Amino acid sequence: MSAFASTETEFEVETRYASFPSLALDCGITLLNPEVAYETYGELNAERTNAILVLHAFSGDAHAAGVSRESGQPGWWSAMIGPGLAFDTDRYFVISSNVLGGCRGTTGPGSLDPATGERYAMRFPVITIGDMVRLQKMLIDSLGVERLLAVAGGSMGGMQALEWTVAYPDAVAAAIPIATTSRHSAQQIAFNEVGRQAIMADPDWNQGDYYDSKPPARGLAVARMVGHITYMSDASMRQKFGRRLRDRDAFGFDFSADFEVESYLRYRGSQFVTRFDANSYLYITKAMDYFDLAASRGSLAVAFERTRARFLVLSFTSDWLYPTYQSLETLAALRSRNIDAAFCELTSNYGHDAFLLEAKEQSDMVTGFLESVHRDVQAAKREPEAAKRASASVAQEIVDRFDYAMIAEIIEPESRVLDLGCGDGQLIAWLGEHKRVDGRGVEIDPGNVRRAIARGVSVYQSDIEQGLADYPDGAFDFVILSHTLQEMRYPMRVLREMLRVGRHAIVTFPNFGHWSTRLAHLVSGRSPNTKLFPYPWHDSPNLHFLTIHDFLALCREQSWIVERQIFVRGNREARVLPNVFAEVAVFSIRSSDASAAAGA
Amino acid sequence: MSAFASTETEFEVETRYASFPSLALDCGITLLNPEVAYETYGELNAERTNAILVLHAFSGDAHAAGVSRESGQPGWWSAMIGPGLAFDTDRYFVISSNVLGGCRGTTGPGSLDPATGERYAMRFPVITIGDMVRLQKMLIDSLGVERLLAVAGGSMGGMQALEWTVAYPDAVAAAIPIATTSRHSAQQIAFNEVGRQAIMADPDWNQGDYYDSKPPARGLAVARMVGHITYMSDASMRQKFGRRLRDRDAFGFDFSADFEVESYLRYRGSQFVTRFDANSYLYITKAMDYFDLAASRGSLAVAFERTRARFLVLSFTSDWLYPTYQSLETLAALRSRNIDAAFCELTSNYGHDAFLLEAKEQSDMVTGFLESVHRDVQAAKREPEAAKRASASVAQEIVDRFDYAMIAEIIEPESRVLDLGCGDGQLIAWLGEHKRVDGRGVEIDPGNVRRAIARGVSVYQSDIEQGLADYPDGAFDFVILSHTLQEMRYPMRVLREMLRVGRHAIVTFPNFGHWSTRLAHLVSGRSPNTKLFPYPWHDSPNLHFLTIHDFLALCREQSWIVERQIFVRGNREARVLPNVFAEVAVFSIRSSDASAAAGA
Repeated sequence: MSAFASTETEFEVETRYASFPSLALDCGITLLNPEVAYETYGELNAERTNAILVLHAFSGDAHAAGVSRESGQPGWWSAMIGPGLAFDTDRYFVISSNVLGGCRGTTGPGSLDPATGERYAMRFPVITIGDMVRLQKMLIDSLGVERLLAVAGGSMGGMQALEWTVAYPDAVAAAIPIATTSRHSAQQIAFNEVGRQAIMADPDWNQGDYYDSKPPARGLAVARMVGHITYMSDASMRQKFGRRLRDRDAFGFDFSADFEVESYLRYRGSQFVTRFDANSYLYITKAMDYFDLAASRGSLAVAFERTRARFLVLSFTSDWLYPTYQSLETLAALRSRNIDAAFCELTSNYGHDAFLLEAKEQSDMVTGFLESVHRDVQAAKREPEAAKRASASVAQEIVDRFDYAMIAEIIEPESRVLDLGCGDGQLIAWLGEHKRVDGRGVEIDPGNVRRAIARGVSVYQSDIEQGLADYPDGAFDFVILSHTLQEMRYPMRVLREMLRVGRHAIVTFPNFGHWSTRLAHLVSGRSPNTKLFPYPWHDSPNLHFLTIHDFLALCREQSWIVERQIFVRGNREARVLPNVFAEVAVFSIRSSDASAAAGA
Repeated sequence: MSAFASTETEFEVETRYASFPSLALDCGITLLNPEVAYETYGELNAERTNAILVLHAFSGDAHAAGVSRESGQPGWWSAMIGPGLAFDTDRYFVISSNVLGGCRGTTGPGSLDPATGERYAMRFPVITIGDMVRLQKMLIDSLGVERLLAVAGGSMGGMQALEWTVAYPDAVAAAIPIATTSRHSAQQIAFNEVGRQAIMADPDWNQGDYYDSKPPARGLAVARMVGHITYMSDASMRQKFGRRLRDRDAFGFDFSADFEVESYLRYRGSQFVTRFDANSYLYITKAMDYFDLAASRGSLAVAFERTRARFLVLSFTSDWLYPTYQSLETLAALRSRNIDAAFCELTSNYGHDAFLLEAKEQSDMVTGFLESVHRDVQAAKREPEAAKRASASVAQEIVDRFDYAMIAEIIEPESRVLDLGCGDGQLIAWLGEHKRVDGRGVEIDPGNVRRAIARGVSVYQSDIEQGLADYPDGAFDFVILSHTLQEMRYPMRVLREMLRVGRHAIVTFPNFGHWSTRLAHLVSGRSPNTKLFPYPWHDSPNLHFLTIHDFLALCREQSWIVERQIFVRGNREARVLPNVFAEVAVFSIRSSDASAAAGA
């Protein structure tokens, strides 16, 4: 019986095997007759545009989805792959394979060396993530797939996804690297090294030659225990175990497992040896430690130079093994090359394990992202000249807003647009539909980011005041800041950055110079509290107040050129005495610095 | 030759030994003839009021300062203890001892069991932090010290310091727990358990009986490697090692140490066995895991019920092994009992190691704190009825500020005062000197917090908007918020909290109703930029603007009672049309809720 109780997504699968004549490795050695264990789910379409390769993490295997005919077990990503799920097997052809160096069907140190007929053990060559991906490419080719719709995976799976976009830029339309890094850090190497030393300190390891006797079970268990701590978070361990005792009411005052967390780790450590080979532990952790996408290519930005994929990068707040800053390093390089990269940091207590456990949180984004990429790919295939980012439905409220109408009037069709504080992406979606723009957004609220990505809009989760630094000069035609300037802590920095990365900056704000505001301040002797500024002084999101005159004066001071100014009163323009009568101002400005403007 | 090159603080020391008939342990067993290794620095004064006990961390020993006559080595806290240093041996009598269960002179598993004449090994009883402290109390008693001026230590040393304040509340005037916790978390237990399992997995461990053969060197090395990772931070490892290779230009494609971080960990692991006993590793980590100050006492707050010590709690930003939130848990309990606790989270990249490495950063605070406590203790001893917190010099700028003069006029002598956003503590120091108040502060800027604590003012580092929740109702007579209300994101929450924890709230703010502000807004049609509001709209720390009328209206709305209102214009009172002419308003208000007022 399967432990996986779900009904709709239950489908039987079988692991298959593919063999190849040889594989040239990064270490210089050529591996003969490598074999790959793999599974596929769903059907390849006639145009061969719907293939997705999912990539497993450290101790995973080819069995990613469905129910194994052999073991009756669900796959490691069954919550994400299946009919109607994020990787929807009714629409996509999903491929999963065990990595090179593994112990679950693909050639690794436990395999027989065809040259000697004996197990490789430590005579297996040291491999890299690049080698793993090279073998996957052979598999994909053999399945008749020229270009993957997407590569996706968490942790070491994310490393493979990133390697794919760099090694085979023409063979990948999109990448979803989750909870991962572009290079292993000193701390990550250190944890892996502890695991390796624990294995190699076990006399049963016997220099790797234990296949005919007993494996280094105690060393491997200690290694796995360390691993488990790094996969969880302080908070999730507190929640799951706290200081609860195991099978006792008081301390035992001995060295048996007093605490539940001790007993859990001992159990997990001792179980691991039944399903994982200690030598594979050594080889695969070494491959991760060697991983540095930038190293041989000069820099990460250079590494991505030929990359044409769109990205969805996900990280988790409590993941301290692959912390968000590592995803941000990857994103900074992508954005410096103006590569389309959506990003969301999901809130989770699960630590690194979140990438496997928070399926629900990730599903809507993966669904929306894949749909959007698939639409792009199909459109490019069918009518390449009209390829445009189409979006689904747009709420009526966009259509009703006069200031949005004004923004839309200013923005040129098919231009590159960045919307700062884009909320759930409605304006970009609307501009995509009506102006066929290549639109992206920056938004700080994770809920909004999720909703935007789920509707196929590329949004980067960030504080606006930090979020523009990575973009090159002139990356966009228009940068929009709508009704947000007055909420910025440092509005000048934001305006300067807008004018650096965009040829034009469109700024809208409520006019603090409106007669009602001024009169209220004078007559009442109180902080203005009007229809336009509806908050009491002590509970307002507005941090700075500015009038139309303030903004115009600033433009003069900074020598910014005002290209358009539209003053809004109700649902029409206020043409007379706008600083007195306009409720909202819409400005389009540009820098007077010719070089910046030419940067586009 | 000593590796410690400093000249001024170099003084020779010798480890001494004290024996006691027996020690009753928490496990129920009585240990016979325990021996303690200890050192002392400086001289006990005639009044016996200057003794400080410093407490070592996991792998430390009695040799805390000076140069060992035996080994020629400096002590583990030599940068903090010595003539003119933070623990100034010209003024204080400093005591340090090796913990129970250790392997550096104090009785532990490697000692001979007097009952059998053989090593205890695993027949040594399981001990607790409480047991360690009980043995230290015997040592202190034998040295003729009735009450310690302070107990101080980092990590496990901090646990002992906390245990002292609870187990012997009358014997401790002050405590300095650094980078520590009131109870070990699941994650901390987990890391210790991995270390223990690594040792016990080593066949050389031999159930602890290895003293006549070779010790479990490989297991202990793996345990120490894990420890080292947790003592550093991701950032410090990146800084110290990055991905630098060891003695090579390219990957070795083998399992020797490719990276510097690997070689460092291997070296540190292998060295540890020369100075530390594997069985002590087991016993001392178990004592830490058992540590939970709250457990047997119901709650942490109850544990501190009889505690009369003043506290200086320090933590470090990058310490993920004993993260700041654990210090905050201790502080919340202390503050809920209205115990005087200063707190600073120091900025450091060093991780948990920071408590040993950031001596300079800690020294000024420890110096100021100890001086202030010593002054209190001396004063109480000499003239108990007039014990007051005297402070050193107060800057002239306090004396010159008219609004401070007004605050001072309102505050009653010898009252309990809390100053929110207290900066570097000048006002509290001034009130201490001139009004003999029991003053404390809350301040967010770590530099200000350091300066305040260094001048002996008790300041708690926190956001004002978060910082009051732990205090009980009516903990203070006066709570001051000076010139800060307009910078608060949620001013209402702050005002409500002030009125909850204080009988009176004193609030001062710049008057946005001042004629210059209003006229500027009306006439210029721009955001007011005047002498009183000297910032351009886009670069102002002020987040909310309020006028005197706004504040009065709010008091009416909330039924707060205005006890005093003083309006300041230049250096005198503005009595006519204050909302028009006053630049600054000083209010003293109280809640109309009688129960809150009675809570005092």
